[in-house]
Amino acid sequence: MTSLENDRFLRALLREPVDRTPVWMMRQAGRYLPEYRATRAEAGSFMALCTNPELACEVTLQPLRRYAMDAAILFSDILTIPDALGLGLYFSEGEGPRFERPVSSAAEIAALEPERAANELGYVMDAVALIRRELKGSVPLIGFAGSPWTLATYMVEGGSSKDFAKVKSLAFNEPKIMHQLLSKLAQSVAVYLSEQVRHGAQALQIFDTWGGSLSHDAYREFSLRYMTEIIEQLPREADGCRVPVIVFTKGGGQWLEAIAECGADAVGLDWTTDIGLARSRVGHRVSLQGNMDPTLLNASPDRIRAEVAQILDSYGEGTGHIFNLGHGVTPGIDPEHVAAMVEAVTELSPAYH
Amino acid sequence: MTSLENDRFLRALLREPVDRTPVWMMRQAGRYLPEYRATRAEAGSFMALCTNPELACEVTLQPLRRYAMDAAILFSDILTIPDALGLGLYFSEGEGPRFERPVSSAAEIAALEPERAANELGYVMDAVALIRRELKGSVPLIGFAGSPWTLATYMVEGGSSKDFAKVKSLAFNEPKIMHQLLSKLAQSVAVYLSEQVRHGAQALQIFDTWGGSLSHDAYREFSLRYMTEIIEQLPREADGCRVPVIVFTKGGGQWLEAIAECGADAVGLDWTTDIGLARSRVGHRVSLQGNMDPTLLNASPDRIRAEVAQILDSYGEGTGHIFNLGHGVTPGIDPEHVAAMVEAVTELSPAYH
Repeated sequence: MTSLENDRFLRALLREPVDRTPVWMMRQAGRYLPEYRATRAEAGSFMALCTNPELACEVTLQPLRRYAMDAAILFSDILTIPDALGLGLYFSEGEGPRFERPVSSAAEIAALEPERAANELGYVMDAVALIRRELKGSVPLIGFAGSPWTLATYMVEGGSSKDFAKVKSLAFNEPKIMHQLLSKLAQSVAVYLSEQVRHGAQALQIFDTWGGSLSHDAYREFSLRYMTEIIEQLPREADGCRVPVIVFTKGGGQWLEAIAECGADAVGLDWTTDIGLARSRVGHRVSLQGNMDPTLLNASPDRIRAEVAQILDSYGEGTGHIFNLGHGVTPGIDPEHVAAMVEAVTELSPAYH
Repeated sequence: MTSLENDRFLRALLREPVDRTPVWMMRQAGRYLPEYRATRAEAGSFMALCTNPELACEVTLQPLRRYAMDAAILFSDILTIPDALGLGLYFSEGEGPRFERPVSSAAEIAALEPERAANELGYVMDAVALIRRELKGSVPLIGFAGSPWTLATYMVEGGSSKDFAKVKSLAFNEPKIMHQLLSKLAQSVAVYLSEQVRHGAQALQIFDTWGGSLSHDAYREFSLRYMTEIIEQLPREADGCRVPVIVFTKGGGQWLEAIAECGADAVGLDWTTDIGLARSRVGHRVSLQGNMDPTLLNASPDRIRAEVAQILDSYGEGTGHIFNLGHGVTPGIDPEHVAAMVEAVTELSPAYH
């Protein structure tokens, strides 16, 4: 890690001593930044931005020019894999991501070719390699993917869902078919993340956005199991450095003990979890990432600072905390409020180390 | 309670011995039933159905004709109070409830008259009295209201919301104004529920549908506190019988210890909580209601029976469990699948008592 100017993010993930709590922000390369919106307009569409390595690199670096973030995260989308599997990803205004060809039947699922995804996603690997080069050793680069369960929800529902009726019906009525789908996705995600590491990613995050829609038993059977399988297959080192893995299940606060055993180095927390309590439950085995309510970025800079102080204090002294939001930053946020959050972390956290 | 033919719901709420686990279903009077849809069509609109005591009584009784439910729940909507406060409730297709006149400024909130709500809601009290009479002592009648926080989310956002940005901005930036709004709503809800008891409700449930969108600290400050205030003001007895109170915070599984201290007799659980674990955490002080994933009603009758068995087994032996879903039943469900759930509870639960 000595080749990095700033390695406190990686050190905190491995629970090694740091000078202050590292900070980054889920979706930090995003619509709340005017410079992002300009690049997005230049690209013409969201997918055009994702598939153009130069532009994806540009938006990845934009937040680092404004804020003292301790990590960069690849600009991409969790649905690149289903798109590469042939489902036809598109974005409709106000409705979020949609698929032209959702899957649900045994035949459709049997026809999916996991190895196809790897071949189609060269544009992501080109972006990873370019961003890593352009970072010039300043901060580490995070690669990421969606969890198999989360990808499956979009693939079966055809897009976002309120109650996940279709995908849950498949899971409850046809568990074998569901497991076949999840197995294939786990295989794709494992290859995809391994390739990201080979191209330069120095840490990985698995986004399990919809694992929290399940009961505890169903979560273990349909989501956690496949994240565990993926982590077992990932390279644990690159260039002699350990590549830490973060698992983030939104709504998973009740299941931290189980999540902490999946092989990840760190567990992401949404804002409904008390981080101090989480530390007492699983902090002896994993680092914790989070967990300010993203809507707090609508509050005044003073209120934001008070919330940062509260979260730092709740976690308490010592390493193992990576400051973040409890979910991605939302489009309407004032960039100055993000600055207030980052400044509060950098100014207030040294007292805990 | 001797005047009721079937009082096992009330007995289980008070953790008194029962012969089997009682069962009812949130939103049991609803769109999944063809006879409901016929009455709804006759009424002309959802609000016309709510405001007509005879029709509200009819749909309340419909599920009891089909299933061995151990309680009836008043057919109404949680948003009757904001509507009575003058916000103009309406339902737009596909978008759910909306308000013509949302509130957000200090002046708009100061102008709200909590005593006005009580005067406008005579139609609800007429329905309660009529349903109680028509039940003829068969099973108890549950009255209900939304929690102040949940009502406030709709009142400030103007309808449903994805991230609650407006109402949370008010809470974080103008906590005094937010507390004024919540205080007024707590006052209205306390009067509203007390009046329901006076007209015949034998148990009460407070629906805190959106408390789970908050952090633990914010939940205590903006939601739990006001439910506690309401419960302190409710009549604890009617006709010599205790009137038990159930508090249901969807997404509140991490905060059960705090919720169990609010004065409620029972705590409702959504399906993300392991009910056995919940019992070990708070079962010595409150009963537990729940908690099958509503989407499981899409599964086969055999799969539904297996899930019921698993939940009963997880709770274990003894009283204090009221079987329910972890949220309201959804419109597309096959009524036969509800029958399978109710039968499984009635057939499998005696072994635990």
